[in-house]
This record gives sequence, structure tokens and C-alpha cells, in this order.
Amino acid sequence: MTNAQASLAHLYRVFTKPEGQDSKLAQIEQHLSDNLADFLSRHVVASPRSLEDIEQDFSESLLPEQPQFVSEHAQQLLDKLVAHSVNTYSPRFIGHMTSALPYFHLTLSKLLVGLNQNLVKIETSKAFTPLERQVLGMIHRLIFNHEPDFYQQFLHNAGHSLGSFCSGGTIANITALWVARNRLLKARGTFRGISQDGLLVGMQEYGYNSLSVITSRRGHYSLGKAVDVLGLGRNSLIALPCPDQTLDPALVLKEGIAIQAQGGKVLAITAIAGTTETGHIDPLDELADVAEELGCHLHVDAAWGGATLFSRRHGKLLKGIARADSVTLDAHKQMYVPMGAGMVLFKDPDAGNQVRHHAQYILRHGSKDLGATSLEGSRNGMAMMLYASLHILGRSGYELLIDQSLEKAQRFADMIEKHGNFQLTTAPVLCLLTYRLVPQVVQDKLQANPDLAASINPLLDELTVAIQKHQRESGHSFVSRTRLEIQAYPQQAINVFRVVLANPLTSDEDLAEILAEQNRLAETLPQYQQVILACGR
Amino acid sequence: MTNAQASLAHLYRVFTKPEGQDSKLAQIEQHLSDNLADFLSRHVVASPRSLEDIEQDFSESLLPEQPQFVSEHAQQLLDKLVAHSVNTYSPRFIGHMTSALPYFHLTLSKLLVGLNQNLVKIETSKAFTPLERQVLGMIHRLIFNHEPDFYQQFLHNAGHSLGSFCSGGTIANITALWVARNRLLKARGTFRGISQDGLLVGMQEYGYNSLSVITSRRGHYSLGKAVDVLGLGRNSLIALPCPDQTLDPALVLKEGIAIQAQGGKVLAITAIAGTTETGHIDPLDELADVAEELGCHLHVDAAWGGATLFSRRHGKLLKGIARADSVTLDAHKQMYVPMGAGMVLFKDPDAGNQVRHHAQYILRHGSKDLGATSLEGSRNGMAMMLYASLHILGRSGYELLIDQSLEKAQRFADMIEKHGNFQLTTAPVLCLLTYRLVPQVVQDKLQANPDLAASINPLLDELTVAIQKHQRESGHSFVSRTRLEIQAYPQQAINVFRVVLANPLTSDEDLAEILAEQNRLAETLPQYQQVILACGR
Repeated sequence: MTNAQASLAHLYRVFTKPEGQDSKLAQIEQHLSDNLADFLSRHVVASPRSLEDIEQDFSESLLPEQPQFVSEHAQQLLDKLVAHSVNTYSPRFIGHMTSALPYFHLTLSKLLVGLNQNLVKIETSKAFTPLERQVLGMIHRLIFNHEPDFYQQFLHNAGHSLGSFCSGGTIANITALWVARNRLLKARGTFRGISQDGLLVGMQEYGYNSLSVITSRRGHYSLGKAVDVLGLGRNSLIALPCPDQTLDPALVLKEGIAIQAQGGKVLAITAIAGTTETGHIDPLDELADVAEELGCHLHVDAAWGGATLFSRRHGKLLKGIARADSVTLDAHKQMYVPMGAGMVLFKDPDAGNQVRHHAQYILRHGSKDLGATSLEGSRNGMAMMLYASLHILGRSGYELLIDQSLEKAQRFADMIEKHGNFQLTTAPVLCLLTYRLVPQVVQDKLQANPDLAASINPLLDELTVAIQKHQRESGHSFVSRTRLEIQAYPQQAINVFRVVLANPLTSDEDLAEILAEQNRLAETLPQYQQVILACGR
Repeated sequence: MTNAQASLAHLYRVFTKPEGQDSKLAQIEQHLSDNLADFLSRHVVASPRSLEDIEQDFSESLLPEQPQFVSEHAQQLLDKLVAHSVNTYSPRFIGHMTSALPYFHLTLSKLLVGLNQNLVKIETSKAFTPLERQVLGMIHRLIFNHEPDFYQQFLHNAGHSLGSFCSGGTIANITALWVARNRLLKARGTFRGISQDGLLVGMQEYGYNSLSVITSRRGHYSLGKAVDVLGLGRNSLIALPCPDQTLDPALVLKEGIAIQAQGGKVLAITAIAGTTETGHIDPLDELADVAEELGCHLHVDAAWGGATLFSRRHGKLLKGIARADSVTLDAHKQMYVPMGAGMVLFKDPDAGNQVRHHAQYILRHGSKDLGATSLEGSRNGMAMMLYASLHILGRSGYELLIDQSLEKAQRFADMIEKHGNFQLTTAPVLCLLTYRLVPQVVQDKLQANPDLAASINPLLDELTVAIQKHQRESGHSFVSRTRLEIQAYPQQAINVFRVVLANPLTSDEDLAEILAEQNRLAETLPQYQQVILACGR
């Protein structure tokens, strides 16, 4: 054999022959299968290696020239990558919306790659296309609760769409506002619609001098991207103040009327069901009234909170969601599906037709190809993961997960309030809450003299940042932080710890220990002494 | 235990305990690991069950109420879903860009889900962020080949970005044109840029009455979506005729000058390196000259063809790509990575700053969070799959794969040309080609009397559709079809078979058998008799 032939044989091998049972890769796989928590705790090192240091391992820009043995590479992945990843499974990683997942997703992810379907078209997905439509239908019904007949008519209808799967909430939000924009400036007379003729001609045709999207200051940052990419500009996103963390319908109405009195048009109200930072839910039913009054689209970003609908008890928190025109929902959040399972749902199955597109080789007229109304093109079969989860957990299983997360958040809030050195800054509506460390003596001072807040809060802000950073770097537990206005300080944004209690494995002991660790850490920090000093003056 | 407690215990089990060794899920996993081809050939049934029939299995819109055992559900997935999926691994599935993948991706996909990192921010990805930046740097260097110093400066630079990973070529194309649009209408004086002030104000500020994107009729359908979503409207996409399948620089220049003489502005030329339908490559170097002359952005959609750069011999086909302002590339195409690994690269590391965005809880100013310049938000760590492939195959391994695909396409073209009943409609430049079945007697007639084409081609179109449909339904092999103008019929679009010869497992025998099957099939079809009859007249 020549060298080239030998290399080719090696290449074919990676396509046709699995690694041996004793190989490094097989060992990794076995360990993952047997005990994921153990795999992670053994391989993810808690040592505080800096990002700059880790970057040294990934600093080569020249492509590797020669092939490498799979086992050799697998060892490198363990040492360089896995070792310095984040253990999102850990019950003490409660800072973001990424948590432990059910075991069966490990095997299903392998099946997904083994099948390697492309959901943009039936020719590369076949049964995956009806499966995805069914999952969208189930979620549509959970939200909008149309009659069974409706679903019989539209679930597999070539000319209509109940929504789209997409990579995540950002693409879902963009898709929703794209559809809303195109519906508002739709074809009439000789105008062929904004989709064909563009925004300039569309706004002239309809006589609007501006298009606005109204949301609260807790609106997700993807809304800014959405209005940017859609050509409206970030100034068109009106983010109203919300010291109680929810969008005030009266304020929206007032703002909307003012905009429309000046020749502008409110394109959409974007209400939030589960804000990213605090988990609050906007008053959807009242906002639906306002949307009707303004004659605009109501989009609900329920990327986080949508799964609350699984719970009979807590689902009511989203009262009015069925009146939305579109809803964003992420299955990779509270539905415990791996990353990459966003969805956008439309109440009206005709809505998606405002962005329908065709090609010569796929997405032909009359086809049921899912790609005809999606923003993305080629996509994998992630819907299978949600399909499996919906069946294996069932609605009642999801209900239990949601209910116990909310109860846990309530218990954590109680712990914080009972602890002398902490202040609950936003109470949990869902399983998110925010708080900060305020030494008891400082709390007493602030209570006695509220005017002190103006000077003390900036010092507390520095303390919060310092604690969060040290806790993250120590590697035992993780909370995130954000900056927001709360009712006590409506004019003064403050830094707060932010926690998301979605991991079913997180225990009350974990939570108590997180507080204890923060308390211990704080006392070692100069920022702590500064706050105390400032209050002593 | 109460019922609720029992259910909760069941739920915790799926998060903490793998299925037993003898479980259905473990069996599936073992089979996948041992012999993927065998798994697929045993479980994917070739029987021609209609889509409408399959839809019956996915027609329930009500959520399942009760939990289901994992093994029971696994069996259902096999019966309902896997059985009616498409065997994209099959060497005879040569109709689309989805093919066999290396084995190690099965295990890596499990690792990816086990780690469940979110690449939007370092706090949920840590080493995955530098890894992704490194992979982007390697691909950037492959395309733009800047000096090593450049990469040392920008690879891990918080204020700059060499590009983004994204779900696929569509998002990559949209991102590229989004950046181009925002760069063109950037802030100056009191104008805060289109990103803030929107398209209307931006075009007024710069005095343009239209913005256009020029491409060829072979441009991917995502470009239409891109100009739609960006607010330019589909009319702003100028898709020039290209009977030789490539964009004519002289025509682009003429069109661009005409647009700009009328007060419009050419936003971008989108050149294609590997068209989806025929695999042709636009003359990138000459188009870069035209872009310079018009003062516009040059975007190269190399979603398919970019990987050709791995080949020393064939990489030259993309001469001039280093002059592009932005390039789209899909690792899930000719880099044999699972679905969901698109990339957009920018020559200028400052380009992405035109779409930079921030939030209070992540993506803070000065952070290295990858989400600050991406269109998508939360994303999984798909970059790991490409990182592993680049190391395990090496540049030289990818070169072999590319070279042998191109040679195979050339051999298939020869088979088609030598076979009396087939006509090669577009010759392979990369590993794609198109052809159609034209019975020898019809070919003779057409040669003797070219005017007959006007009436015979529509009959051949019907024959092509019928053969493709029957072949797909018979389940032994799959080619796709499209409709395009070729040099022989520049004014008359014709239907053609389209094949993509990227699967390294496809042999010459497979290709011969595909032709033989089409030949056999054709003779049984009424459309075949019709063509023959029409020529006999």
C-alpha cells in the first residue's frame, strides 16, 4: 500500500468501524452511561484555572496537518476541554438555566446523530417531519387549547403551520416579530407586501413613520437583536420601567396611544412569561386587552415560563397566554431537553404564510417540508428529544418537576429572609429569585435611615460582584448576578445574586451551604469591611 | 409512599440512574455502537409507506398524561420513528448533502449532551469558549490566511470576533448580510447607525433609495429569507441568469452600475462557492474586483464548497476567496460533522462589532462571551465536533476525502456520458452533478432537430419527476431533482436529477446500479412511452 492508500484506509475505518471495547473513547462512553455525576466530578476539575490560562491550550490557528488516533484525541479532550468545562449537572450550579438532564437523552443523542436526519425537508427526514408537527401541535394545544377539530385540520396541513422548532428562544423571538412585521405590512392593491417590497415601501404604503415594539426592562436582550435585524432599529424597542418586575398595562396603553398619535404604529407588545432575570410573569390577560385596543400583535416570550402550563396549580399564572398571537418556548429550559430545542408557536395557522418561501429542489409548492416557514434551513431532529420527554415524563411528570421547583424556590426565599445577613430582592414567582448579602448591621442602619441607600447601595454592589466572582472561582457552587431596579429602589439599579432552582437534584442542604459559603466568603473581602465601615460613620 | 411520592421517585430516577444493561435503550445503544450500518438496515424499513400513512402515527395533539417506561417508549421510537426515517448513511442515498459520518461522533454527541454547555457565555461553557474561538481561527486562517501575528492578536480578543458558529448556512448568510448592512449604514454625526435608528433613517442619512444584493439564480434560497428578514424585501435580491451556472462578473458590474446610477446602492455581491444545485463555483477573484469597483461587501456562500480548501489540488478552484469580506461555511456538510455546525467568518475582526449587544446578567462590556456578536443566543458546544474532526482527520485526511469525492463525481459523469440513455446536464466541478434520462432515440432526434427541444423538454421533465418519485418510493436508492437552465437551453428551465457524491462509502458499483435502476424504472412508466411517441411523430 502507498501512503495515500493507507491514509484512505484509515479514513474509511472511522466511517465504518467503531473504536474497540477497550479504547479510550469506549471507556468515556461507558463512564458516561454508568454514572454521569461521577464522570463529571472526576473529570471536571474544580481548580481555579484562569480563562487566559485555558486559552493557552487553544491558541494554535494552523490546522493540524496529520491525522491523530481517536484514543489519543479523546484523552486530549478530557484533559483540555472536559476538565475545564462547567459542571452544569451539579446541584450547586444554580446560576443559570442549564441543569441536569434525564439519562435517556444520552442515548437519544447518539441515536439522533446515528440517524442524522435533516428536518428542512421530508426527503431527509420522513417520519421526523410528522413527529415534529405533532410535538408542535401538542405544545400549541397546551398554550392555545383550540378544539380537537382544529388540530385534526391543521396538524399535518401543507398550507399552514402551527409554529417552528428552532435553535433557541432568540431565533423564536426573531421569527415571531418577523411574522408580525410581515403581517402588519402585508400585500394590498399593487403593494406586494414588505416581504417582497421591503420596509421603506411598506411604511409608505401604510403611512407609518415608525414601528415600535413595547416590552419591559426585563425583556430579553434578544428583542434588541430582533428589532435590529428586522430593520426597525434598537430605538424602536420601548423597554418600560418595571420596578415590580412586570410590564404595567396602563403604561403600555399610554405609551402606545402616544406613539400612534404621532403617526407611528405599535407593531407588537412583547410580554414575558418568566423573565430571564427574576422569573416574573407579565399580566398577560390585561396586556391582551391593551393589544386589542392598540390593534397590535401580542407576542409572549415564555422561553422560560411556558413549561409552567404543565402544572394545574401554577399554570394559572399564565392566564391570558391563549390570547397571544405568538409564543416563544424553549424545551431546553424547563423541559429538560438538551440545548437547541427552541419553538415559536402561532395561534393562527395562517400566520407563517407571511414568510413562506420556496426553492426548486426542495420546499416546492404544496410540499409539507418544514423548512418552508422557518427562519433556519437545515436542522437536526431535536424534536425527537422533546417527543420522548413528553412521553416518558408525561404531563403529570412535568407538573411534579415544575411544582417542586417552585416550592424549593419558596423555601430558599424563606431561608434568605430568615438569615440575618441576606436580603431577598425579588421574591420567587417561578423558580427564580434574586437576593444579595447585606450584613445585619447594615440592614439595621438602612432601615433606620433609608436615605443612606444612595451611598450604601454602590458599596453593596461591589460586594455582590466580589462574592459572586470568588464563589464562581472557588468552584464549589455557582450563582449568577444581574443588575436591576426593585420596588425598594425604583430609581437606583442594584447588583443582585440571581438563582434558578430548576435542577431537581438540588437539595435544601445545597441551598443552605451556598448561603453559608457566601457568608464565609464575604467576611474575607475588603468590600465587606468597606460597607461595614461606611455604616459605622 | 403516596402516589405523588412514587412518581417523584420515578422522576429522580431518570435524572440519576441509567437504564439497566439489558434494557431496550441499552440494546439500541449497543447496536448503534457495534454496527451503525446494520442498525439502520435492520430498523429503517424500505417499504413504501406513504407520508399520510405515517402521519397517522403522529396525529394526537393532546399531551400524554401519564409517564411511560423508558424501554416501552424506546420500542415505540424504533417502530414509529426510526423505521420510517431516511437512511442517510446508505451509500445509495446520494440525493442530498447529508451522508455517513465518522463513528466517533456518536460518542462525542453523548459527551456533548452529558456536558450540556451553553456557548452563549463563559459562565456556562468555560473551556468550550476558547475552543470555539480556536476552531473559528483555524477556519479563518484556512480561508483568509492572515499572518500568524494576526491570530495571536485576535483569536481570544474580547473586543473582536473572527466569526460565529451557528445552526447552519442560513443563519450564517443572514448574519453576514446583517453585518454588511449595519456596516454600510453605520453611525456618523448625529446618526447613531442603522442598528439604533433603523433602516428608514439610515437610508435617508446616506441618501440611498434602494439597497440591493446581487447573486446568481443558483444562489441559495436563504438569501431570499435574508433580504426579507433584514427589511430590504425580496425584490432587492437581484438573481442574475447564469446558463453556465456561475455568476458573470461583467453582468454584475453592469447591473451594479445601473442600480447605483439610479440612486440605489449595492449592499453586497453574494458569490457562491459550490452551488447547492450543481456545485459550481463563481469566479471569486473577478467578483472581488467588481465588489471593489462598486464599493460593496463581498460575501461568499461557501456552505458546501468551503471544505475544498483542505485540498491542495482543488482548493485553487476558490481562488480569490481570501478577498471576501465574509464567508459562510457548514461543517455539517463536507466536514462530516453532525447537523448544526454552521459558521460565518469575517475577514475584518472589527466587523462583528456592528451587531455587538450586551445584557445585564451576561455579555457584559469587556467579556469574552461568544453571544455578544452572534445572531443566536443559547447554543450547544457543536464546535467540539469540528475540533475533534479537524484533529482526528487532519488537513491531509480532509484533503483525501475531498479529492476522492471529486474523482468519484468525475467517474460518475463518465458513466452517464457513456450510457446511451442518459444526458449529463451539468458536469461536476465539485462532487455534485446533474443529469437526466433521455432515451437514445430521443437524443438522436434532438441532435438532428434542435427545435424539437421546446416540445420534448416538457415531456422529459415529466419523465424525470416520475422516475425520481418512483425511485425514492422503492427505497433502494435516492437521487434528488431540481429545475434549472443549462447552456444548451438557456431560456428553457428543465428538470434534472441532482446527485451529491460526498458519502465516502459510495462505490462505483452503487453508482452503476443507480443508473441501471433508473433505466429499468423508466421503461415501465407511461411518461417514457410518451416521450418516445412524441419523437416518433
